[in-house]
Amino acid sequence: MKAVRLEEYGRVPTVTDVPDPVLLADDDIIVQVEGAGVCRTDIHAYEGQLRDVFPTPLPFTLGHETAGVIAEAGPRVRGMAVGDKVILHPLITCGVCTACRRGDDMGCSDSAFTGLVVDGGMAQFVRTSQRAAIVLDPSTDTQSIAPLADAGLTAYHAIRRAVGSLTSESVAVVVGCGGLGHLAIQMLRAMTDCAIVAVDPLEAARALALGLGATRVAGEDARQVVEELTNGAGATAVFDFVGEDETPRLSLDLLGRQGSYYIVGYGGTLEVPTLEMVLKEIKVQGNIVGSYQDLRELVRLYERGLLDSRVVSYPLLDAPRAFADLNSGIIRGRAVLVP
Amino acid sequence: MKAVRLEEYGRVPTVTDVPDPVLLADDDIIVQVEGAGVCRTDIHAYEGQLRDVFPTPLPFTLGHETAGVIAEAGPRVRGMAVGDKVILHPLITCGVCTACRRGDDMGCSDSAFTGLVVDGGMAQFVRTSQRAAIVLDPSTDTQSIAPLADAGLTAYHAIRRAVGSLTSESVAVVVGCGGLGHLAIQMLRAMTDCAIVAVDPLEAARALALGLGATRVAGEDARQVVEELTNGAGATAVFDFVGEDETPRLSLDLLGRQGSYYIVGYGGTLEVPTLEMVLKEIKVQGNIVGSYQDLRELVRLYERGLLDSRVVSYPLLDAPRAFADLNSGIIRGRAVLVP
Amino acid sequence: MKAVRLEEYGRVPTVTDVPDPVLLADDDIIVQVEGAGVCRTDIHAYEGQLRDVFPTPLPFTLGHETAGVIAEAGPRVRGMAVGDKVILHPLITCGVCTACRRGDDMGCSDSAFTGLVVDGGMAQFVRTSQRAAIVLDPSTDTQSIAPLADAGLTAYHAIRRAVGSLTSESVAVVVGCGGLGHLAIQMLRAMTDCAIVAVDPLEAARALALGLGATRVAGEDARQVVEELTNGAGATAVFDFVGEDETPRLSLDLLGRQGSYYIVGYGGTLEVPTLEMVLKEIKVQGNIVGSYQDLRELVRLYERGLLDSRVVSYPLLDAPRAFADLNSGIIRGRAVLVP
Amino acid sequence: MKAVRLEEYGRVPTVTDVPDPVLLADDDIIVQVEGAGVCRTDIHAYEGQLRDVFPTPLPFTLGHETAGVIAEAGPRVRGMAVGDKVILHPLITCGVCTACRRGDDMGCSDSAFTGLVVDGGMAQFVRTSQRAAIVLDPSTDTQSIAPLADAGLTAYHAIRRAVGSLTSESVAVVVGCGGLGHLAIQMLRAMTDCAIVAVDPLEAARALALGLGATRVAGEDARQVVEELTNGAGATAVFDFVGEDETPRLSLDLLGRQGSYYIVGYGGTLEVPTLEMVLKEIKVQGNIVGSYQDLRELVRLYERGLLDSRVVSYPLLDAPRAFADLNSGIIRGRAVLVP
Repeated sequence: MKAVRLEEYGRVPTVTDVPDPVLLADDDIIVQVEGAGVCRTDIHAYEGQLRDVFPTPLPFTLGHETAGVIAEAGPRVRGMAVGDKVILHPLITCGVCTACRRGDDMGCSDSAFTGLVVDGGMAQFVRTSQRAAIVLDPSTDTQSIAPLADAGLTAYHAIRRAVGSLTSESVAVVVGCGGLGHLAIQMLRAMTDCAIVAVDPLEAARALALGLGATRVAGEDARQVVEELTNGAGATAVFDFVGEDETPRLSLDLLGRQGSYYIVGYGGTLEVPTLEMVLKEIKVQGNIVGSYQDLRELVRLYERGLLDSRVVSYPLLDAPRAFADLNSGIIRGRAVLVP
Repeated sequence: MKAVRLEEYGRVPTVTDVPDPVLLADDDIIVQVEGAGVCRTDIHAYEGQLRDVFPTPLPFTLGHETAGVIAEAGPRVRGMAVGDKVILHPLITCGVCTACRRGDDMGCSDSAFTGLVVDGGMAQFVRTSQRAAIVLDPSTDTQSIAPLADAGLTAYHAIRRAVGSLTSESVAVVVGCGGLGHLAIQMLRAMTDCAIVAVDPLEAARALALGLGATRVAGEDARQVVEELTNGAGATAVFDFVGEDETPRLSLDLLGRQGSYYIVGYGGTLEVPTLEMVLKEIKVQGNIVGSYQDLRELVRLYERGLLDSRVVSYPLLDAPRAFADLNSGIIRGRAVLVP
Repeated sequence: MKAVRLEEYGRVPTVTDVPDPVLLADDDIIVQVEGAGVCRTDIHAYEGQLRDVFPTPLPFTLGHETAGVIAEAGPRVRGMAVGDKVILHPLITCGVCTACRRGDDMGCSDSAFTGLVVDGGMAQFVRTSQRAAIVLDPSTDTQSIAPLADAGLTAYHAIRRAVGSLTSESVAVVVGCGGLGHLAIQMLRAMTDCAIVAVDPLEAARALALGLGATRVAGEDARQVVEELTNGAGATAVFDFVGEDETPRLSLDLLGRQGSYYIVGYGGTLEVPTLEMVLKEIKVQGNIVGSYQDLRELVRLYERGLLDSRVVSYPLLDAPRAFADLNSGIIRGRAVLVP
Repeated sequence: MKAVRLEEYGRVPTVTDVPDPVLLADDDIIVQVEGAGVCRTDIHAYEGQLRDVFPTPLPFTLGHETAGVIAEAGPRVRGMAVGDKVILHPLITCGVCTACRRGDDMGCSDSAFTGLVVDGGMAQFVRTSQRAAIVLDPSTDTQSIAPLADAGLTAYHAIRRAVGSLTSESVAVVVGCGGLGHLAIQMLRAMTDCAIVAVDPLEAARALALGLGATRVAGEDARQVVEELTNGAGATAVFDFVGEDETPRLSLDLLGRQGSYYIVGYGGTLEVPTLEMVLKEIKVQGNIVGSYQDLRELVRLYERGLLDSRVVSYPLLDAPRAFADLNSGIIRGRAVLVP
């Protein structure tokens, strides 16, 4: 089959022929991929930034945002069957460690991250465990839903953490209105009654944000817009989907007393005097991918029509062009590879 | 001035002339009433059901859902002034007891409930403390917003409690789609992404509920509708705005495992085997009027256009007719007296 | 092997010979039992009260509070091995349903309750899944720890729910100081800084309660003691380990405004006017056995020396006498059968 | 009267004669001071580090940890009277702003911090509002309890935030076992069942920590001790009462996945890659002084005998020596000035 392979750090992955995956454990499934989202983490991966975190031997197949149809199922698979449409949580978990027993999938002590540690979904087929799969309604558009497996799920995980603190009096700020941010705005709209400020340097991204439910948008003038909208009190929550360069400092500046800064994007450094943290009683929360249960809730949100996942499709063979377009910032929403 | 006076238990109150109220404490205000909501609690009061709870000497002026304009302000009043449009929290609180210091207004140990313990808002003027008033935008329609002071506030208080447990996978049930219920449906729609089932025996109430955002409506078939919508799992939360006759039993039956039954309406009895409580791990939560802070949030929700408060206006002099109409169940939304 | 068999409803179970259990699934384990707690639920079971809830074909082996040593392990068992000392969660769970994925073991949609649905631990050997087992320190006394698997776990589950609402200003009441109650007092002492009132009609039980950390004890005078200790404000939480006859009414009476009534024992009926629930904003919470994660925490609490589990040991063959002693109320702490 | 006056930044305050304070508002009280705690913030203040945060005109009286006896009371004072022993919350609040209405004293928009913005308690008398005072049992030792007003209250506020996440499986770390830290250890012991690691470079401080309930103590070997005690999983919570130099980096290193770093001490800088925050899902929470309600709970904890406040008393006239001793690190517990 065809697959997008990370063969050498620092070089854009190529599409090559590899053997089809086979069932290994008796609760494994093989999924025929119909949509594989392209994520900034894929770029971080082939650039080598994650080499220390995931020291996976090269080459391997990228792809951790996958939706498709079950093509094969091991003998112990329950509650799903060949032919079912599914979306895949990026992590394969053990089910018996302490974290798994608590529902904290990302903390599994015996896990494998597809597309970073084991072969991922940028291919015609992918092997995973039934523990990673959620059955979808047969009418679901697998290209649109694929980005929910990571971009959507990570945003959902951060927003779900914040929901209890957001009221009609709150302002929530979304920094970065791309693959994650454009979904985050809609989740905040669906799940809370707070005002939403969307911050992005690009005019087109701001226009998309407004169309998807942002109360206000801002570029360079973010501090001023939030100041104005909150009468100087500052935001209750800032979701930073960039996490590098200027955004950590900007995010802290936008916060009001007892506000929360949710870091989702990464690459930069947070630097803040402890006195500032104390005086404003700021909370800073790091956020990684959500749990399997988070993904279930997110899929339901999508199926209830409350989420418009904007995707730009590319044939699997055009993966290098998709990486280039993501890098250059011209994609509105999320790029999805279609095998 | 004219006022609706409870003069004798068991008899419908009449509109009579009484002296205008005067400032008593230096943080008191006098409000010229523009809208005074009519509540089932007013009927319970003149029928004598609350005589033991509030043994107030007769006669007194009813009315605990009041909006209007500040006509006079004591010398210590801050942050508001004569001419400001305001909505009034029903309780006058002391500000220094433990409950007040925690923001738990309804627990104030030195409080007075307007319209039940001291003269209320069904009159041309009412005296209260600045601690009860929230300043409104000058453009606010005081007749529409008045019912938020109790009907809306009580519903908001119960729903705010539930919000953290409601996800896209949850079904919330609103039992009784009248003065409180029709607002509750809209709050659930604005504040959560769960599915909403509205239950009411009256076709017109169900039609209103659907128009305001209910996912499904039900009458006698409530058990079946919830069963179907949850694939037999049962509801996550039931808000019972009736609280008498059949509704406690119905509400418990609609709940799924670890579901929560919020009792708002009252008059009947909850009777349930302890074994049932244990096996399903049910939670039953009683709910009274919300806090001052709850009312602030609710007003903001309204001002952001997320709440359509349906009112039927009556001249103050027609108060007896309003009571009769509420009793006969023909009012859609809330009756409001206009002095 | 010898086992305590429920052979006919309404008759005390007898000890008879049955075949040794065998591994069925590849993650099953066989445990050689060293301690099997005797629970009021066992009596409810053989009296037939649970026949509708658990319509298990007779005969079967009772026992859902089990500790012992792994005698055999299936090929897929990880993280534990033959010879390990273990305590067993009473439920065998599937690991892949929604509830299991959230860590809500008791909600597992494909589960089996040992000792009520499948053969339990009142025997020389019991079969269960590795998913039910927690490895203990080799020095642990398996007779003392056995009651933690249900008596302790159920109390822990209820108390863990309450912990966030209990401060130094709170009074928590434990109604019934037997198998669950004597452990509950110690958990409250270890996990919170609130005052504890222990209520029991028996002088010996009250003496035990005082020795284990209760601030005050009460018999008939419970209302007066709580009134006095709280200056009339009432208790923050009442844990009712009886749940029948007078205790639901008593428990409600002891509560203060916004207090919580945790029902753990069962058999009686809760009957309360909705007006009372509303005016005091009472919460009533049903509680069943805790999760696997709850049991891990409880074992750790025990291993850290913060819990004194009082047991009275009986040879397995004397099971009928243990049932009789529990019924007559003469056991202080928990009866444990030793095969 | 005598008072400790900050007369010039960069110079140790001197004790001079100033006029006695007088009642200004009708809910003011004058308190005859019996104990005034000495805090590192006093040193930060006279060194000029807080000049931008609190640009108070010099000279003024220091002291924000005060206990004593009411000497005079305004006409509107309720619930306390001349002769009552009291402890004073450091902040004078307005009672009507949004923050006050929520019980968030430290967020009051019209407040004054005693000893930093208005004259404080390092004097024979101090003026404050009844809103700042909590009546104590007549038998309370006012010298011992004084440090609870800030050192204790700030630690309590941080620990109360963490309590819900601390179980018997958790390890909590206290960094810095001085004025705040030695109280924090005891609060963790009283309010939770977690293991406690106390970190301090000084042997004497570590010995005190062990005596007050720490499970383990550490100096330079903190990373190793936590690694060992948690089997490599890391701490659930770290409370940093230093907040400068090496402690922010150390604190982050001690945390496990989803751990929380509570910053209480200040002066240094937190610097952390966003990738680290994301991968470990770390939470960093700034903490300032607790609320009035927090102080009520803390006083109750103290009165119930669960808190041993270690103080070293100095005559008021020896204030400069107390500052010097605090600076040189020789004080175990807290220094208290006695007028």
